[in-house]
Amino acid sequence: MSPHSTADLLTRRYATLGEHSPLFYREPLELVRGEGVWLTDATGRTYLDAYNNVPHVGHAHPAVADAVNRQLRTLNLHTRYLNHVVVDYAEALLETFADPLDRLFLVNSGSEANELALRVARQHTGHTGVLVSDFSYHGNTTSLAQLTTGLTVAEPLGDHVRALRIPDAAGLTDAEASVLCASALQEADQAIASLQAAGHGLSAVLFDPLFSTEGLLRPPQGYVEGLAARVRAAGGLVVADEVQSGFGRLGDVMWGHELFDLSPELVTLGKPMGNGHPVGGVVTTAELLDEFGRRNMYFNTFAGSPVSSAAAHAVLRVMDAEQLRPRARQNGEFIAARLEQLAREYPAVASVRGQGLFFGLTLVRPDGSAAPEAARALTERMREAGVLISKIGREDNVLKMRPPMVLERAEAELLLDRLAACLSALEPAA
Amino acid sequence: MSPHSTADLLTRRYATLGEHSPLFYREPLELVRGEGVWLTDATGRTYLDAYNNVPHVGHAHPAVADAVNRQLRTLNLHTRYLNHVVVDYAEALLETFADPLDRLFLVNSGSEANELALRVARQHTGHTGVLVSDFSYHGNTTSLAQLTTGLTVAEPLGDHVRALRIPDAAGLTDAEASVLCASALQEADQAIASLQAAGHGLSAVLFDPLFSTEGLLRPPQGYVEGLAARVRAAGGLVVADEVQSGFGRLGDVMWGHELFDLSPELVTLGKPMGNGHPVGGVVTTAELLDEFGRRNMYFNTFAGSPVSSAAAHAVLRVMDAEQLRPRARQNGEFIAARLEQLAREYPAVASVRGQGLFFGLTLVRPDGSAAPEAARALTERMREAGVLISKIGREDNVLKMRPPMVLERAEAELLLDRLAACLSALEPAA
Repeated sequence: MSPHSTADLLTRRYATLGEHSPLFYREPLELVRGEGVWLTDATGRTYLDAYNNVPHVGHAHPAVADAVNRQLRTLNLHTRYLNHVVVDYAEALLETFADPLDRLFLVNSGSEANELALRVARQHTGHTGVLVSDFSYHGNTTSLAQLTTGLTVAEPLGDHVRALRIPDAAGLTDAEASVLCASALQEADQAIASLQAAGHGLSAVLFDPLFSTEGLLRPPQGYVEGLAARVRAAGGLVVADEVQSGFGRLGDVMWGHELFDLSPELVTLGKPMGNGHPVGGVVTTAELLDEFGRRNMYFNTFAGSPVSSAAAHAVLRVMDAEQLRPRARQNGEFIAARLEQLAREYPAVASVRGQGLFFGLTLVRPDGSAAPEAARALTERMREAGVLISKIGREDNVLKMRPPMVLERAEAELLLDRLAACLSALEPAA
Repeated sequence: MSPHSTADLLTRRYATLGEHSPLFYREPLELVRGEGVWLTDATGRTYLDAYNNVPHVGHAHPAVADAVNRQLRTLNLHTRYLNHVVVDYAEALLETFADPLDRLFLVNSGSEANELALRVARQHTGHTGVLVSDFSYHGNTTSLAQLTTGLTVAEPLGDHVRALRIPDAAGLTDAEASVLCASALQEADQAIASLQAAGHGLSAVLFDPLFSTEGLLRPPQGYVEGLAARVRAAGGLVVADEVQSGFGRLGDVMWGHELFDLSPELVTLGKPMGNGHPVGGVVTTAELLDEFGRRNMYFNTFAGSPVSSAAAHAVLRVMDAEQLRPRARQNGEFIAARLEQLAREYPAVASVRGQGLFFGLTLVRPDGSAAPEAARALTERMREAGVLISKIGREDNVLKMRPPMVLERAEAELLLDRLAACLSALEPAA
C-alpha cells in the first residue's frame, strides 16, 4: 500500500505538473512496482504489461540495475575525456548494423536523435524539405513539432514539410496492392516536385519502418524501396526512425529497416535503448558523421556518459544472454496466429497488425467504419481484467500491444485469453 | 591500470564516434574513476576536478547511486501512469522558486529544456523573434543552433534572432558603468525594433544569468532588469537559462536570476540537476504551463520517470544534508579573495570573474589584449599539475573553474596554490 491516496496524489500532480500532462485511463492508474512483464498498483493488484516497450528487457531487470549502480559508483562524466565504456558500447551497437552504417552519435532521447538526424541531412543536402507520413510523430522539439501529424501540436505543418499518406495493403490482393503502390509513389513524386518548386528542395524522408503511430500499416511490396529511390534521386537522405521498431522487437530482424531492401543513411534510436535510462542515438556513415563534425562543434553533455553507456550495453547483453530476439520471433508467431483466430471469430476485428512483439488489432463497427469507441472500451476493460494495452492509428481504432521482450509463452496466452474474453464481453463471438 | 592503452582506445573511439567528437587537452585524458572532487586516470594518477559542474554533489556520490539503484530495482516508467516519486521531486524543486513560478515540465537535457521554453514563449506571444547574447550557447537542436553565437555551427543565425553584446562593467567606475548600461539598453531597443519591423515580433529573451560562455561577464547594475522591462514592453517573455547558474552554485542564491531584481516567466534547468543522470526541466507559471498543455499534447517518454526523479531528488537532499549552498558561498568568498590576490600579483591576470563555485580569471598580454594562448597553456599546465580546469569567453582567454559543490577548503587551497605556481611558471610574479 502506498502511504497516500491516489486521489491526493493526483491533486498534488496537478498542482506541480499541471492537468494536461497526459495520463492513461479514465481513472489514472498508480503504479508502484515492476518486475519482468508485471506491474503492481498502489492497492497491490498486479497487471500484465502488454503496453510498455521502454522496459525492453523487462521491468527492474537486475542486470541493468547492476550495471548502472556499478558505474554510478565508479565514474559518470561527459565524453570530452576518454573512457572505454562508451567505446565498448558503440562497438557492440554498431556490430548490429550492416555497412556502411558504422558511426554513432549518442544523445539523450528519440527527440534529440531525430533533431540531429535532420540537422545532418539538411546540412549535407543544402536543402530543407522533409517528407513524413501524414499520421506520425517523431519528437517534441520545435522543428519536430513542425512535422508532427499524428498528435495535437499548436505549430502548423512547416512550409518545408510534405506529409504522405502511407498506403496500407492489408487485405488487398497483389494486383490491388500494386495499383495502390503506384498511386502512392505518384503522390510522393508530386510532394517532392512541390518541395522543389517551392525552393525547399528535399533533405530527407523520415519514417518509422513499422508505421506504428499510423496504426501499424503494411505498405505494399516495393513502396518503401520506391519511396527511398525517389528521395535519393531528388538528392535527399533516408532516415529510419527506429525508436519503436528497433532493438529486435520485430523478431525476424534487429532493425525495422531490414524489413525492406533498404540501407538508410541515418537511423535514429531511443525508447528501449537503455531500458528506461534516457539514451538515444543516431547511427550513420563515416562520411556523414565526419562532414557534420567538421562543420559543427557538436557536444551533448549527458550523452555517451559511462552510466548511459553501461545501461545501454546491459540491454544488448541481456538481449543476447536471454535470447530475446529469437523469443520475440517465436512468441510473435504464436501471438499472430491466435490474433488471426480472434479476427475470424469476432467481426469487430477487421485485421491483425504488426510483427514480433509489436502487434495490434484493427476494430470496426458492423458497417465497416473505424470503431475508436471499441478500442477505448477494450483498453479500459483489459485494465479491469489486469492487462495493460493502449490504442493507436489515424482513427484511434487499433489496439496497441508491445510488451517487454521477456514475455513468456504462458504470459502471452494470458494476454490473449483476456483479450478474447474482453472482445467477447464487447460483442458475442460470431 | 586499464586493460588497454590510451592510444588504442583513441583509435577505437575515432572508428565509432569519429574524430570530431570533442576531447579536452592536446593529449586526451583517459579517466577511469571519480570520488568527490577527485578523478583518477588510466595510469592511476589523481586530479583535482575544478572543471566539472555536472557531478554537482561530487563524483560517484553514494546517495545518488543508492537512490537510482533502489528505484531501478523498483519501477522505471513514464508519467502516463501515476507515481509519487516524480510528484515528490516536483514539490521539492518548486519550493526553491518564488511565486508565481510553481509549475514544472520535466525533460532530459538542457537542450530539451530550452527548446520547450521557446515553444511555450512563441505560442504564448504569437511571435517568433528571440534575443540572445552574442556569445552564448543554449543547446544542440536545430532551433537552438539558429541562435548559437558562442560556438561553431553550420546554421546561420536565424532571421528571427538578434544577438546583443552584453555589456561588461568589470573594472569600470559607477559612472562609466551607467553610460555603458544606457548604450547597451539602446542596442536592445534597436534589436527589438528591428525584429518588429521584420515582422517577427519578440517572443523571448534567452540568457544565462551568469553570462558564463561569454566569459562570466558582469553587466552594469540595472542592465538585466532594463532588458527584461523592454522585452516585456514588447510583449515578450524572459527565459533564464539556469543550466549553468542554477542549483546553488553561486552560493548567495539558489538560482542565478535571483542575482537581479527579476522574475523570469521561464527558467530552464539541466547539467547538475541529476548529478549526471540525464534530466532537465522548465519551471514556469501555471498560466503558461496550462496554456501550452491545452494547445499541445506534450509528452516526453523518459522525462519524469521515477529513476530520473529519484536521481534529481537525491541531489536536492544531499545539497541540504551537506549544506552545499552555504559551503559554496563560504568557499567562493575565500577563493575570490585569493584570486584577487593573484590578480594583483600577476599582470597577466586582468580580472577576477564569477561568483560562488563558478569563477575565472581573465588573461591578457602585456599590451592588454586578450591572451588565449596563456589560457590554453595554463589549462595544459594545470593538468600536468594535477588540476582540471578549462577556458571560455569570446576571446577564449578566461580560465573557467566550477568544481563539484563538495569542494573542501583544503582542496580549494590546493587548487589556488597550483594555479599560482602555474601562473608563476608562465611569467614571474610582478
